[in-house]
Amino acid sequence: MGEEIVVIEGDGIGREVVPAALEVLEAFDLGFEFVSAEAGDATEEATGEALPAETYELAADADATLFGAAGETAADVILPLRDAVDSFVNVRPARAYPGVDAVRPETDVVFLRENTEGVYSGHEGRLSEDLSTLTRVVTSSASRELAEFACEFVTDGRGPVGGPEDGFTVAHKANVMRETDGRFRDEVLSVAEERGVDADEELMDAFATKLPLDPTQYGVVVCPNLAGDVLSDLAAGLVGGLGLLPSANVGHDNALFEPVHGTAPDIAGQGIANPTAAVLSAAMLLEYLSYGEEGQRVRDAVEGVLSDGPRTGDLGGDATTDEVTAAIVDRL
Amino acid sequence: MGEEIVVIEGDGIGREVVPAALEVLEAFDLGFEFVSAEAGDATEEATGEALPAETYELAADADATLFGAAGETAADVILPLRDAVDSFVNVRPARAYPGVDAVRPETDVVFLRENTEGVYSGHEGRLSEDLSTLTRVVTSSASRELAEFACEFVTDGRGPVGGPEDGFTVAHKANVMRETDGRFRDEVLSVAEERGVDADEELMDAFATKLPLDPTQYGVVVCPNLAGDVLSDLAAGLVGGLGLLPSANVGHDNALFEPVHGTAPDIAGQGIANPTAAVLSAAMLLEYLSYGEEGQRVRDAVEGVLSDGPRTGDLGGDATTDEVTAAIVDRL
Ligand SMILES: CC(C)[C@H](C(=O)O)[C@@H](O)C(=O)O
Ligand SMILES: CC(C)[C@H](C(=O)O)[C@@H](O)C(=O)O
Repeated sequence: MGEEIVVIEGDGIGREVVPAALEVLEAFDLGFEFVSAEAGDATEEATGEALPAETYELAADADATLFGAAGETAADVILPLRDAVDSFVNVRPARAYPGVDAVRPETDVVFLRENTEGVYSGHEGRLSEDLSTLTRVVTSSASRELAEFACEFVTDGRGPVGGPEDGFTVAHKANVMRETDGRFRDEVLSVAEERGVDADEELMDAFATKLPLDPTQYGVVVCPNLAGDVLSDLAAGLVGGLGLLPSANVGHDNALFEPVHGTAPDIAGQGIANPTAAVLSAAMLLEYLSYGEEGQRVRDAVEGVLSDGPRTGDLGGDATTDEVTAAIVDRL
Repeated sequence: MGEEIVVIEGDGIGREVVPAALEVLEAFDLGFEFVSAEAGDATEEATGEALPAETYELAADADATLFGAAGETAADVILPLRDAVDSFVNVRPARAYPGVDAVRPETDVVFLRENTEGVYSGHEGRLSEDLSTLTRVVTSSASRELAEFACEFVTDGRGPVGGPEDGFTVAHKANVMRETDGRFRDEVLSVAEERGVDADEELMDAFATKLPLDPTQYGVVVCPNLAGDVLSDLAAGLVGGLGLLPSANVGHDNALFEPVHGTAPDIAGQGIANPTAAVLSAAMLLEYLSYGEEGQRVRDAVEGVLSDGPRTGDLGGDATTDEVTAAIVDRL
């Protein structure tokens, strides 16, 4: 029996793009055992819970999970799911593809986003009628674990070229958050030094100015949680939107893969959603499970289709999700 | 005797662009009394303090302050100065100019950034060997005060077109920071409703994707402190960099004006810095002091020079700071 993969379509176009990604995975006949699970707005309506305990447990016990998107309940679904797979890093590649309209076609950046703390560990409170607080948390241990991952990532040659040679850039706001982002920055840079990996740093606001001006300055970018959220979404805007961006939430012996896009309610249910981000998330899943060759074949097929195959409406075409998916499967 | 204006050149190109802005202000003969004060890296080296108490007091007692830039000590200078003038909003226009190379030449957005709280109120601590925290603060009073300002701003027609008609967009991360950014969002939207101003909202990560894709979707954008820092710097990248961006820190009966750029150590001391951001900050100062006509004349002169006058190196020309300044003064 092969690896157990939990499949959560979620809401909106999640119900269209996840089946497309599954079709691609099934084309390899790797003996995966797919287990469906429910989460999202519709699940909350039906059961009272956006993320039922059963789904959480399934994801926690699986070898990997493929997730689509959730609507209003997104945070209630995705944040616990990241926890279920014990994920400490969110890997978010943002690259432009030849032939796809992009504000900055030279963009090729991978964000390694801390995935457990910062404002997301969420100790919030209403202290008075007038005042609320949120306590942001940064630990050396989480910062160092992320940095170790980043060092391996660049040493394995998995990062794009750009930024310090074979190294990475740390983006942070340690000039204001001196103690917390200062700790993050110091730990990440010190791990890089111990590992002999080149690393430089950039204030996150300066990064937000400089990325659009010249994305080729950057390759692998290591960030605290919220910084990684915003800066990777900025990069998405430069490569032409969210329709192409996959992501991996990697844990110690489990992982969760999801397109960066949401449920796209304006086009949901019409069969015209772009499956690319979900299919590329499946490619990341294959690579994570050590099916590197298969993952590469998926990437090549996707690139081929993007350059001269059918396109969905978001890329200026009029193909359906099924047509694009069939074209990808055809090229595997 | 006219208004008292404190002038702080600071470090690096601050020492070149602030005199340029002063030359423009002096051209009007409005009877301003200019008072010089010191702050920044050089001041810290000389006196042990980046922002001497005397400078703080001068800024606090003045009618307005014009500041250049500070180097390593930037946060130690600018954050207390914002406090000195009791500033609750940071006004950051980001627009592209005809003839200036920009990633997104259609960009014309004004950020109204909360200027007192969020992570900037800075209750940070090292709780253990491994763990540090920062307590982020959001109050209804500060959120509502910002919103009142935003409503007046759009009602007075001071905002660019884009976003909700004659209204504004609130950018936040209330899906994660539910209690703090939730409070911010709710208060801002409720003030808008009370004032009959159109307002919509956007998650700050979605905003970071959508602004590069189509900046004309937005006009006036109201943000918490750090969100405003990062998103306005992103907009700076879309209009071609920081050389053109002025800002105003507005308080109750005092204000501080500063170019968004830093000290530019690579070109400092050579007399080739672009004075535009500082000169436009002076225009904001004029408008703040009710010299609206003079402010407009400065803007017109700057635009004229940008479209067919001499240019500094950052804009592809080879003019000096003095030549550009003289050309601006010439057109007043
Ligand atoms: C839905 C939300 C909680 C989530 C996040 O902020 O991490 C999303 O924006 C993302 O980036 O996956
Ligand atoms: C220097 C720094 C403290 C400051 C800020 O974060 O506000 C700067 O980035 C700015 O935007 O004026």
